[in-house]
Parts: sequence; C-alpha cells; structure tokens
Amino acid sequence: MAAPLRIGLAGLGTVGGGVFKILDTNVELIERRAGRAITVSAVSARDRHRERGIDLGRFAWVDDAGALAARDDVDVVVELIGGADGPALALARSTLDRGKAFVTANKAMLAHHGLELAELAEQRSAALKYEAAVAGGIPVIKGLREGAAANQLDRVYGILNGTCNYILTRMENEGLSFDAVLGDAQRLGYAEADPSFDIDGIDAAHKLSILASLAFGSRIDFGAVATTGIRAVDSADIEHAAALGFRIKLVGLATAESDRLFQRVHPCLVPHAHPLAHVDGSLNAVVAEGNFVGRLFFSGRGAGEGPTASAVVADLIDVARGEIGPAFAMPVARLSPMPLADQDAHHGRFYLRLTVADRPGVLAELTAALRDAGVSIESLIQRGQSSDGGVFVVMVTHVSTQAQVQAALDRMAASANVVGTPMMMHILDF
Amino acid sequence: MAAPLRIGLAGLGTVGGGVFKILDTNVELIERRAGRAITVSAVSARDRHRERGIDLGRFAWVDDAGALAARDDVDVVVELIGGADGPALALARSTLDRGKAFVTANKAMLAHHGLELAELAEQRSAALKYEAAVAGGIPVIKGLREGAAANQLDRVYGILNGTCNYILTRMENEGLSFDAVLGDAQRLGYAEADPSFDIDGIDAAHKLSILASLAFGSRIDFGAVATTGIRAVDSADIEHAAALGFRIKLVGLATAESDRLFQRVHPCLVPHAHPLAHVDGSLNAVVAEGNFVGRLFFSGRGAGEGPTASAVVADLIDVARGEIGPAFAMPVARLSPMPLADQDAHHGRFYLRLTVADRPGVLAELTAALRDAGVSIESLIQRGQSSDGGVFVVMVTHVSTQAQVQAALDRMAASANVVGTPMMMHILDF
Repeated sequence: MAAPLRIGLAGLGTVGGGVFKILDTNVELIERRAGRAITVSAVSARDRHRERGIDLGRFAWVDDAGALAARDDVDVVVELIGGADGPALALARSTLDRGKAFVTANKAMLAHHGLELAELAEQRSAALKYEAAVAGGIPVIKGLREGAAANQLDRVYGILNGTCNYILTRMENEGLSFDAVLGDAQRLGYAEADPSFDIDGIDAAHKLSILASLAFGSRIDFGAVATTGIRAVDSADIEHAAALGFRIKLVGLATAESDRLFQRVHPCLVPHAHPLAHVDGSLNAVVAEGNFVGRLFFSGRGAGEGPTASAVVADLIDVARGEIGPAFAMPVARLSPMPLADQDAHHGRFYLRLTVADRPGVLAELTAALRDAGVSIESLIQRGQSSDGGVFVVMVTHVSTQAQVQAALDRMAASANVVGTPMMMHILDF
Repeated sequence: MAAPLRIGLAGLGTVGGGVFKILDTNVELIERRAGRAITVSAVSARDRHRERGIDLGRFAWVDDAGALAARDDVDVVVELIGGADGPALALARSTLDRGKAFVTANKAMLAHHGLELAELAEQRSAALKYEAAVAGGIPVIKGLREGAAANQLDRVYGILNGTCNYILTRMENEGLSFDAVLGDAQRLGYAEADPSFDIDGIDAAHKLSILASLAFGSRIDFGAVATTGIRAVDSADIEHAAALGFRIKLVGLATAESDRLFQRVHPCLVPHAHPLAHVDGSLNAVVAEGNFVGRLFFSGRGAGEGPTASAVVADLIDVARGEIGPAFAMPVARLSPMPLADQDAHHGRFYLRLTVADRPGVLAELTAALRDAGVSIESLIQRGQSSDGGVFVVMVTHVSTQAQVQAALDRMAASANVVGTPMMMHILDF
C-alpha cells in the first residue's frame, strides 16, 4: 500500500465541510479507489472558533493559509477560499511553485489566472485540478478534457448557474416576479446577499470561459464573453415564451465556427424538445457537440455541499492515482489564441418584447423598424395589458443577425410610443 | 515531443473504420491533446480485400490478429473483433501478457472475462481500457470510475441498448407492432439479422454487469443479471402506459442496497417526469446516484461508427497520456464478491396486462388472485378488444414484492378465462 495522500485544506465553508464529510463517510471506499488513503494534515480558515460540526482538533491549524503549501506533511493543497486574486491566488502560486498538487473550486481565479497557473503547474510537473469549478458534481471537466478528447468540438453550452435556474424555474412554475423569487431565494440561502455575480451572469461566464478553452484547445478568454444576466426577464416573457413552445434559461454558449471563438451568456429561449428545457431548479447541465461523437449531455447538481465536495474529492482521487496530465488538456503553449467572432454577425432567431402605448399606428411603426433593418417576422403576439398601462407586443424574428435586430430595436427604443426598455433574447435553435 | 503511440488494430468493421476516420480527420488536435502522435502500424481483419474506403496500403497487414501483440511496432492493441471468447480473448490475453495496452469495445468479453483480464493487466502494469464497451460515445466508464469516485453509489441504471430504444420509440410514435418495427429496423441496418442479443436484453445485461462493478466496487457478475427483453411488449402496453403517464423503456438497473447486489434488465414503465423518459430513438443514457453527488445523468449516442470510435480514441489518448489506473477502478483483489439480493423480494409498483375472455366474473377472479397474494390495486383499466377477441385488462399495483405479484400472476395464467401470457413490468419509481 502506497503512503497516504496528505491534504492541506484552505477554507472551511460549505464545500470545505462537505470534503470532511466525504472523506470520513466514504473512507474505506475512497482508499480502495485511490489506491491509498487520503487524509487531512492541516487546515486553515478565517475563524478558528466558528462552530462547524467538525472536530478540528484532529488536524494542525494554520492561521495563514499561505503557510499550508510549505508544510512537509502536505502533498496537495485544496483551495476553497474563493476570489479571483488575493490569498487564493497566492496559495495557488506557492503550492504549484513547490511542485505540489493544487485542487480548487475557484472558477473566478481560473477564468482570470488559469493559464498562468497551468503553465506553472507544467514547469513544476504538478497537478492543477478544478472539476468542482464548473457545474458542481457533474464530471464535465473530465468529460471534455478526456471523455470527448477524440473530437473537434463545435459547440459547448449549458445551464451553468444554479441560482439563476432556480429563480427562472420558480418564476415559471409559480408565476412570480423576478424580485419576489430573488428575495425568497436569498432568505432560503439559494442566493447570496449580493447576488450580482450569479444573476448578472458573471459566474456563468467564468465557467463558460473554462469550458471553451477545454473544448476548443484555445486560450481562456474570459474578457471576451458577452454577458447578460436575468434581471430584465419579466414573468410576462416566461408566459409568452411558453405560449410559443419555449422555456427561458440562462445559457452559456461557446462556439468555434470558422476557427473564431464566440462566447456568450444570456437568457435564451430553449425549445421544449431540447434536453436543456427540462433542466429545472438548481440543476446544471452541459452539452458538448463533437464531430464524431455527436451531442453529449451531462446533468446533475451544480452546487451545494455534497455535489461540489464530490468533485473536489474526485480530483484528489485522481491525484492519488497519479493521473495528472495538463490542466487544459494540452500544454499551455499549444493552446491557440483564437481570434474572436463578431458578436453582431451572429445569426439566429430572436425574441423581442416591448411595452407600447395603446394607440393607432404603433404596430406599423414597430414593423417598419424591423423591415428597414431587413428583419422579417415569424410570429407576433399582441396581448394583455402591462402593469404600466401599455400593451405587450411579442415578436419572434426569422433568422437574422444580431446587428440587424439591434438596429431595429434601437429605433424602436427611441420611439415615444415605446414604454421602458425593449427586451431581446436569443432562441436556441440547435 | 514523445514518441508516437503505435496501434495494432484488429477488426475493420464499422467501428474500426470510424477509428481510422477520427485519427485522420482530427490528427492535429489529437496529437495536441495526447501529447504525442497516435499512429496505426498494423491492421488485421477477416477479409483483406473488402472495399472499406480506407487505404490499407499505409499499414502492415497481419492475417492472424493474434500476431499483432508480438509486433515491435505495436504499443497498444485495439480489439474490435467482438465475441466473448475466441480470437478476441486470445488477443487480449497475449497483448496484456506482454505488458502492452489493450483497448476494446467488447462488452461480451468483459462481462465474461473482465476480471481475469484486469488481473493480468495489473500483474503486467498494462492498461486495459473499454470506454466504447458501454453506451458508445458517452464517457460513462470514466464518469463512474473517476468522476463519481468520491461517492458510494446506491444505484446505477439506464437505457443501454440503442436497438431496443429505437424499436420502442417507433412503436410509440407510429403505433406500430414490435414485429413491424423490428423488420424495418433490420432493413435499415439498425438491428442485426439475428437480433436476439439486442432485443432479448443480453447486450444490455453485459453492459449493466460492467457498470455495476464500477459503481459498487464489486466483482462483475453477469450471470446474476435477471434479463427480460422487449419481445413481449405489445403496442397496447405502450398505449396504456402513456394513458397512465409512463413511457416504456428497456432499463438496465443495478442497486447495492444493504450490500446486496441486485441487477436486472427489463422493459419498464418510466414516469414522464424522469429524465430517462425523454431519451428517444437510438440514444443511450446512464443515471448514477451517489451519497454526496446526488443524481448524475449522462446521455448521448450509444452506438454507430462515430460515437463508438470516439470512445476508442479517447481511451487511446488516455493511454498516450499515461493515465492507466486499474480497469475496474481498484485492484481486482479489492473488488468485493457481493452477495446477491433476492430478486423476488424486490419492492415496487408493477404494471400488469392480461387478455381475458369477455365473460361475467372474470374481473372478480383476477382481483381475488391479487387480494389473496396480498397485492392491492392502485388503478385498473379495462378497455378495447384485443386482436384475439378478448378484452384487455391493465392494472397498476401499489408497492408489492415481485414474489407477491408473481404468485398472483401464476394463478391468473392458469385460469381458463385468461388468454395468452400475462405481461408484467416494473415501474421505475425513483
């Protein structure tokens, strides 16, 4: 029997607690699968004395997380501190620089510094593992990096943020407003006190940029993700989309058409026949489409103590087994710096919703704006009265470019007959 | 750059052709991901001169597949011959015995000889890889072996045979009989001339026994899979199930309750709300339920040239990367010989369909048989006239044991009022 793999664990929040529980509960099974025991040597967190239901007396306590990497009784550091920079990044650098394995759930850090860390890991022959950073317990990093490795992937997309999916699902099922569900989600602990990382799509964009790099063999380019969250989704949109055969989901989508990288996070109309339409509540799902395998679909719980800790421990088992290839599937030097696709040139059908004054000639004005931009209309519904006394007009366009639709929308938004901000959403047509 | 990984390929059918296409089409990408080139040195097949659209002149030809393992220019043997024994097994043994890597899509051989081969692989420190053996292109072997490795899995189940799923889907969508769809599937190449391996559930049982071993850390026990195929599924069953809110799928299910192994392949009623209900046509899907990760769901194309070859090449990339841990996630000596659960003690709801004579007192006779066996009825539909002049009676029971329901069925089947063989199916209630 090989020597145990000894962990230094930084961060004792929800996920950290889950890691302890798994290592305790499944100890015998993990040792059989890993080929050696996995034990905790030392831990670090902000507050030593908070009640966590874990007997910390079994482990060495380290006040400064940065000191974990240097310890002789630590082979691998598990970082669950969070944050793109600061102590998490310092710990990553010092761990890898010592040639020790580093396991993290920190998507923000990877989206911003993943390539630098992967390069350092290569130079020091150290493992950098991050299955927990994307889609919680679903082994989608492994699925792309290894499972689909034979394929040129054309697209990778999915539901990457459980908080948004929970909010949209409840808005749909209970006919509630965004604000009402958000407030409730905050009370229930499904949404943060400051929810902007989730509901503005930033968390999903972090994850998408990582998936895109793995899928396309390209350099992570978080800055190039066009990101729109779900704040502007109205319960009327959900109702109208349902009437047209769609459900609204926050979708992260990356494509590599003509060797140009296109990345976008946006609320999106998903047809009922698409498997993503049935991913409800706090579930996550990822779809990858390859030139030989076709469409692969992975779903499961994308957050929370058990699922996220399950992914952290899966990484630890990989490290224990010695399976530690390049973090982004190939050496960083071989990742291609893909040129960016023009977001405005993106083709597709679009959903538009406007609130307009109840006056003669308004519909003629709207349809003229679309006609002049070269956008033809597939369906149009005018119905109901909005809360501000106007009338809802909902349109689905035929396939158009985003630039065309945006031009028409800009003209509509400037009209005195249009109340508030028009809503535009993409339709997922594949 | 490391030296190329050199393949000896045995079997040039559909999947073998797909492997060539992937290695050619995605050559640059595969070399980046594998860290070295993957090249074919030598090939072997039954008929050298069949037209395959592949220029075989580039490779050494070997008449006897068994000779591939011994070649100095072969690092890894890819076996696509098929068959549980015979040349495939001889090739596996001779390859692993030489300490060379062995990649296969052969579920029958693994179900019967997997443990022997895994032990040999361990002794010689050779890789034994078989992602293509289960669920085609879906990386479910990796998903269970590595992705879910932190979990004690309670259940693994899924739709493991694309031919059966194709037949059941077309029966449902087009209202056709089993025989009509099977004939059509044979003409279209979706079913073999001798379809019994598929439609009698044997292929699914091979795959299930492999998944169960990976999921539970138990020894493969193909002989203990209770197997029923789809021949007895009538289009009336599909219709009645739909009326009750279910779709009929051939499900392979393995559980490890109270440390007892339960394995079954059977046509089964799946509630519309379950993700397996939406896996249509030739798609496959696998669900794994772990004590921390919860429910993981994987779906994709389970057969065919591209998907299966995608899994073979993924294994080759793993071998090229040096990621070659134990075939069944742990050394064979550490797999537990799990005692078998009593199939008759299995609890659940059951669907029963009988054709009965249109006479007074028949329903009283049927319901008495259930009452005397201690089975209570949740719903009962009597409707329509069957083709043989009788009346269909369809019942759904409350939760009962299989032994109870079987006792009632045996009594009913002996009745002069019951025409033909009663149909019993399990309901998937989780």
